[in-house]
Amino acid sequence: MTGGLDDRAPVAIVGAGLIGAGWAAVFTAAGLEVRAFDPEPARLASLRARVRPLRTALKKLQPVRRGRLVLATSLVEAVGGARLVQENAPEKLAVKRALFAAIEAAADPATVIASSTSALLWSDMALEMSRPERLLVAHPFNPVHLIPLVELFTPDPALAAHAEAFYTALGKRPVRLRREMPGHIAGRLAAALWREAVHLVGEGVASVADIDAALVEGPGLRWAVQGAHLSYHLGGGAGGIADYLDHLGPSQERRWATLGQPRLDGEMRDRLTEGVDEEAGGRSVAELEAERDAALVELMRARRKAVR
Amino acid sequence: MTGGLDDRAPVAIVGAGLIGAGWAAVFTAAGLEVRAFDPEPARLASLRARVRPLRTALKKLQPVRRGRLVLATSLVEAVGGARLVQENAPEKLAVKRALFAAIEAAADPATVIASSTSALLWSDMALEMSRPERLLVAHPFNPVHLIPLVELFTPDPALAAHAEAFYTALGKRPVRLRREMPGHIAGRLAAALWREAVHLVGEGVASVADIDAALVEGPGLRWAVQGAHLSYHLGGGAGGIADYLDHLGPSQERRWATLGQPRLDGEMRDRLTEGVDEEAGGRSVAELEAERDAALVELMRARRKAVR
Repeated sequence: MTGGLDDRAPVAIVGAGLIGAGWAAVFTAAGLEVRAFDPEPARLASLRARVRPLRTALKKLQPVRRGRLVLATSLVEAVGGARLVQENAPEKLAVKRALFAAIEAAADPATVIASSTSALLWSDMALEMSRPERLLVAHPFNPVHLIPLVELFTPDPALAAHAEAFYTALGKRPVRLRREMPGHIAGRLAAALWREAVHLVGEGVASVADIDAALVEGPGLRWAVQGAHLSYHLGGGAGGIADYLDHLGPSQERRWATLGQPRLDGEMRDRLTEGVDEEAGGRSVAELEAERDAALVELMRARRKAVR
Repeated sequence: MTGGLDDRAPVAIVGAGLIGAGWAAVFTAAGLEVRAFDPEPARLASLRARVRPLRTALKKLQPVRRGRLVLATSLVEAVGGARLVQENAPEKLAVKRALFAAIEAAADPATVIASSTSALLWSDMALEMSRPERLLVAHPFNPVHLIPLVELFTPDPALAAHAEAFYTALGKRPVRLRREMPGHIAGRLAAALWREAVHLVGEGVASVADIDAALVEGPGLRWAVQGAHLSYHLGGGAGGIADYLDHLGPSQERRWATLGQPRLDGEMRDRLTEGVDEEAGGRSVAELEAERDAALVELMRARRKAVR
């Protein structure tokens, strides 16, 4: 695998659900030939129609080439001759292991197998592979066609460098993990924040909608510009994070000690569901997705204009 | 206090540091007369010069009226006749209590005392006041002149409603807490996320800069559009949060159990400081603030354009 897009060999998508459709939009937009396979024929048959609006949205952010989307009739047809297989199967270790065995049997020995897994570890998935050194974790973030982040993990520095060049050439922002970690980085940060958001609902501090508003109109807005570490650096004044830690480190540790540890039990399920219903105000998940994506496009265009 | 801006009586700012300057920009932009006082003469003397660029930035987002900024020579001069006193003193309970006693002695009985406190509780601050019912927590979020969020707490529903109308009329997005909580909402969400971000640094998963990049190019970008609860709602597919909780609630609880509990000890201080230095790449705190503010302005303009 060469890192960038000089290698025009096809890429394969295995698993054509929400994540697979997002990848199909990204890969075809770069002008690549994409061979998609899904064991569920209806899901594969609807793929082209689901990819089209994603490409339309992406066009507002970057040049979108025609590419080529081939619906493969078998796994063998999809992965044979592919430079890279982007796997988007269910998050079950046994499913992934069986799938990787099938892919290895059908693909060229040099083909990179990139897993979109959000929850599984590279070392668990690689365990039964005949050529584990070709396995890459390449986890995108929803909505896959718009959000730049791709979290990469492989113990092989050469594959990591190549993968970084490949996803960068697609317009993505890869972040390499030095050590594997369940949930990678972004999923863990999101889980940590949501745990406290759930705790605040449980404690009756504010409604689901108001807690979301506090995030979107406060730190969320700021985190679209600068990360958490840099935010505390700026919170330290001219002396930066060193001053922050010297003066406010102890109070931050005391704050951490008060953070909640809620359970997602039946009562919490009801409170969250009712609260989200109120926040959605009759808008369906599809409508909320469309709103989110339209806003993301505008925000990403604006970020580019700003001094970074 | 009438809720909106019909009452043109002056507002007072007590404490003219970073937060006070932000409020001065916001209040004067609404055309109000602002009387500012700070026990440190140099801080007061520099206030006008520090407010000017904040008003210039704000002008890119909303009409900015001239207003009037008066540097008061005493606390009595600042708060006498004010409809509302926005207090931005150091986060020490004894300091706030003494200050509130002095304000109560000098202000009209009906004057609202609004505290910008990020860490203290209403009930602790109100304890020694002669008219505690006029105390309001009104916590802004840095940078105060740009970030819409203002977290409000008072046990008095009438004062809460009036305060909500007042800060809304200033162009802010107030969020009312039903119950007081140390750190309110946004500070707790930020603390929860940062705790995990610090843990990932400690575990060597990625650099400070890469963890910040994963946030800014991933969930941070999304949280500028939709909150955490709504994000998990969309993560549940067409069935929304109820489906998410039914299918992925248990795995979310398992993820929560793996989140880190780092200490901000000397070793961590060094790692964070070195990592932030690397991320800042020679840019000073002032330069990073200017970049942040320029980007925030563009993002907020873009959000308005998008379907919300």
